[in-house]
Amino acid sequence: MSRKTSRRELLRMSAIAGGGLLAGRDALAADARKLGIPLGPYGERSPFEKATRWTRESKTPETGSSFTPLQTSVGTLTPSSLHYERHHSGIPAIDPAQHRLVIHGMVSRPLSLSMDEIKRLPSITRTLVLECGGNSGGEWTAPGAADVQRSYGLVSCSEWTGVPLAALLAEAGVRPGATWVIAEGADACRMMRSIPIAKALDNSLLAYGQNGEAIRPSQGYPLRLINPGWEGNTNVKWLHSLRLADQPYMARDETSKYSDLMPDGKARIFTYAMEAKSIITFPSGGQTLPGRGQYELTGLAWSGRGRIDRVEVTTDGGTSWIAAKLQEPRLPIALTRFRLPWRFDGRDAVIASRAIDETGYVQPTREALVAVRGTNSIYHYNGIKFWRVRADGTVTNG
Amino acid sequence: MSRKTSRRELLRMSAIAGGGLLAGRDALAADARKLGIPLGPYGERSPFEKATRWTRESKTPETGSSFTPLQTSVGTLTPSSLHYERHHSGIPAIDPAQHRLVIHGMVSRPLSLSMDEIKRLPSITRTLVLECGGNSGGEWTAPGAADVQRSYGLVSCSEWTGVPLAALLAEAGVRPGATWVIAEGADACRMMRSIPIAKALDNSLLAYGQNGEAIRPSQGYPLRLINPGWEGNTNVKWLHSLRLADQPYMARDETSKYSDLMPDGKARIFTYAMEAKSIITFPSGGQTLPGRGQYELTGLAWSGRGRIDRVEVTTDGGTSWIAAKLQEPRLPIALTRFRLPWRFDGRDAVIASRAIDETGYVQPTREALVAVRGTNSIYHYNGIKFWRVRADGTVTNG
Repeated sequence: MSRKTSRRELLRMSAIAGGGLLAGRDALAADARKLGIPLGPYGERSPFEKATRWTRESKTPETGSSFTPLQTSVGTLTPSSLHYERHHSGIPAIDPAQHRLVIHGMVSRPLSLSMDEIKRLPSITRTLVLECGGNSGGEWTAPGAADVQRSYGLVSCSEWTGVPLAALLAEAGVRPGATWVIAEGADACRMMRSIPIAKALDNSLLAYGQNGEAIRPSQGYPLRLINPGWEGNTNVKWLHSLRLADQPYMARDETSKYSDLMPDGKARIFTYAMEAKSIITFPSGGQTLPGRGQYELTGLAWSGRGRIDRVEVTTDGGTSWIAAKLQEPRLPIALTRFRLPWRFDGRDAVIASRAIDETGYVQPTREALVAVRGTNSIYHYNGIKFWRVRADGTVTNG
Repeated sequence: MSRKTSRRELLRMSAIAGGGLLAGRDALAADARKLGIPLGPYGERSPFEKATRWTRESKTPETGSSFTPLQTSVGTLTPSSLHYERHHSGIPAIDPAQHRLVIHGMVSRPLSLSMDEIKRLPSITRTLVLECGGNSGGEWTAPGAADVQRSYGLVSCSEWTGVPLAALLAEAGVRPGATWVIAEGADACRMMRSIPIAKALDNSLLAYGQNGEAIRPSQGYPLRLINPGWEGNTNVKWLHSLRLADQPYMARDETSKYSDLMPDGKARIFTYAMEAKSIITFPSGGQTLPGRGQYELTGLAWSGRGRIDRVEVTTDGGTSWIAAKLQEPRLPIALTRFRLPWRFDGRDAVIASRAIDETGYVQPTREALVAVRGTNSIYHYNGIKFWRVRADGTVTNG
C-alpha cells in the first residue's frame, strides 16, 4: 500500500470526532475504579480468549487428533496448551522419577538412564516446527474442512530443549552393521517408528523441555524424540526405548499408516521429510471481514528442509504474485510468519500463498502435486491453498 | 571435560548390569497397560511439575511482585503462566471489545482505536527479555534471598507481537515541541510512565500477542507498551492512553520509585536501560547435587543494550574464567542460555558468571558497582552473583 492510502484508511477508522475522546475515557474510568486480581502463583489466559484445539466427535478419544487454532495465532510459536495432538492410545500418566530410557540392541554398552541422568548431560535448544504427516490430508480429494484450524491445524512450533541423540549413541557404542534406531513410546500401544541411524547421528534430539518448561504430557512428557523436519509421527512421545538394529521394524505406523499410496497402487514408505508449505491464517475460511479497507494479510510458512527463503502471495487467484514480508529471524525448520498489507475493496478476491525454501523448492499447486502422486494418498499434502474472500467479507475455501 | 572423562562418568551412572534392562522394561510395561488420557481442547502441564511463581505473604496482594522459578527454567523462553509480575493495584478484568487506546495531547489528529483496529495494522514479532528495575535489589546490601527465584526471578522472556508505536504516532501527527509520551495503564492506580519520544519512534511496540496467543492478563491483556531493553516498569500494562507532551509527567513511579539514590543523597531519574547481567540457574542456591561427577552448569544472560557477546564462568571463586557455550540464535535484548560442562569433585566450589554484551560492556563485580553507586539504591543491580557448592552438594549464596 502507499503511505498515503494507509494514512487515510486508518484515520477513517479511528479519528476522534468531537466528544468521542472524553466519552471513551469515562467508560474506562468506570470499569477500573476497583482493585484488580491479586498476584498469583500461576497465570491463566483471559476468559475472553476462547480458542481451543478442535477434536472430531469420537467414541475413542484416546486415538485421533486435535487441531491447533491457527486462525487466532500470532507470531511464530504455538502455546503448549494449544499444540496439536496425535495420539494412538491416549496420554500415559508418567512419574518422571520412575521413567527410564533404555538404549539397547546392537550397542556395546546398553544404557538405562533416569531423567535426572539425562538432564545432567550437555543440552541444546532449538525452535522447531512439528507437522503431522496427515496434516491437510483432506485437501487431496476436495477442498477440505471449512476453516484453517480443521484443515491445516496439525502443525505447531515450540522451543525444544534436550540432549543430542548422537551423544548418547556414542556413549552406548553403536556396533558395526547397526543402521536403524527403533524408537518406542511408553503409551499403551507402544507406538514405534524406525529411524535411519544417519538421521539419529545428524540432529535427532531427546527433548525434555518445551517453551521454557518441562514438555507437556500431551507432547510427550517427560521425554520425546525430536527428528527435526520429519513427519510428526516419527517424533516419538513418552520415549522409553531406543533399540539399535540392522533393519527397520516395519511397524504398523510405517507400513499400513504413514506411507504414501501412489496412483499405480504401490506405496512409498519412509517418506520422512516434510516439504515446504504455507497457509494464509488471516483472512481464512470461516472468518468475516467487517468491511472494506486496509488489512494485514498474514500466515505461516515452514519447510522440513531448512529455512524459508521467500513467500509469495496472490490476491487475484494466482495471476500475479507479490513477495510477502518475512518475520526475522527465519530459523531453519521453524514456523516463519509472513505478512502483507492488503486493501479489501469489496470485490471477490481469491488469495493464496506459496513458500520457497532455501533449497529452492517451490510449494506446488494442487494440480502439480496430484499429477505426480494421484489422490490415493492421505499423507504429505503440501499444495497451495486458496481462500475466497467474498464481496460481503465472508471467507470460504477458494 | 575430556571426551574420555565424560564417557567414563556417564557409564558409571547408567550402564545396565545383568538383568537391569529387563527389570526396567517390566516396570514400564506394568504402568502402561491401560489407555491414557484422551485428546483434549486445552493441555495443562504434568501434575508432577510443581514450579510456581513465588510471592511474599501480604495483606495487599494486589500490589507487589511474583517471581519466575528460574531454577527449573530450560531454554530461553519463560512460560507465560510463570512470567514474573509486578502490579500496583491488581490485574484489571478488561473486555477487549470495550478496550480502546487513545493517542492525544500534542498531536494533530487524536486517535481512539479499538483492539480490532489495532490488529488490522502492520505488525512485527520480537523475542524480548523483560526485567523489573528492582530485580536482585536485595543484593545491594547483602547476599539476597537463598535461591535464584527469590533473588533474581523478576526477569522473563517472551515472544511479543504488535504494532510499532512509531507507525501510530505518524498517523496521529506529532506536533512540534512534543518530546515525551506519557503512557498510562487501565489498572485502578492508572500506573503511568514518561517515555522520551526518541525511544517511542525508535522501537517501542504496542503488543497484543505473547508466545503465540493473546497477552496474558497478568502481563497486560489486551495491550501492553513494550520498550525493548528498558526497565520493566516502563512497559506499561493494560495500556489505554498515550499522551504527547513537552515534559515528563514526573509520576510517582519515576520519582519516588524507579529512581536511583546515589551515595551523595541525590537521585538519578529516568535510568531506563537495563545493563548486561547474568545468573547461574543450575546449580544455584537451595539445590543439592546428588553426588560427585559430571554436570551441565547453566544459566541465563541478557542485556538491554543488544546481544550477549560472551559469558564467562568461574568455578574457583573468580581466580580463573572460562568462556561458556552460548545457545544460538543470540537475539538482541533476549535471554541467552549459556552452558558449561563441569565436574563436581566433592570439594567446595564457588561459581559465578559474567556477561559481556555487544557494546563491550562487562558485567561488574558487586564491589565495582557499589564503589560507584553506594548501597542506597534499590534498582538496577547487575553485579556478578556467586554461589557456593559445598562438599556435601548443597548450594548457598557465595
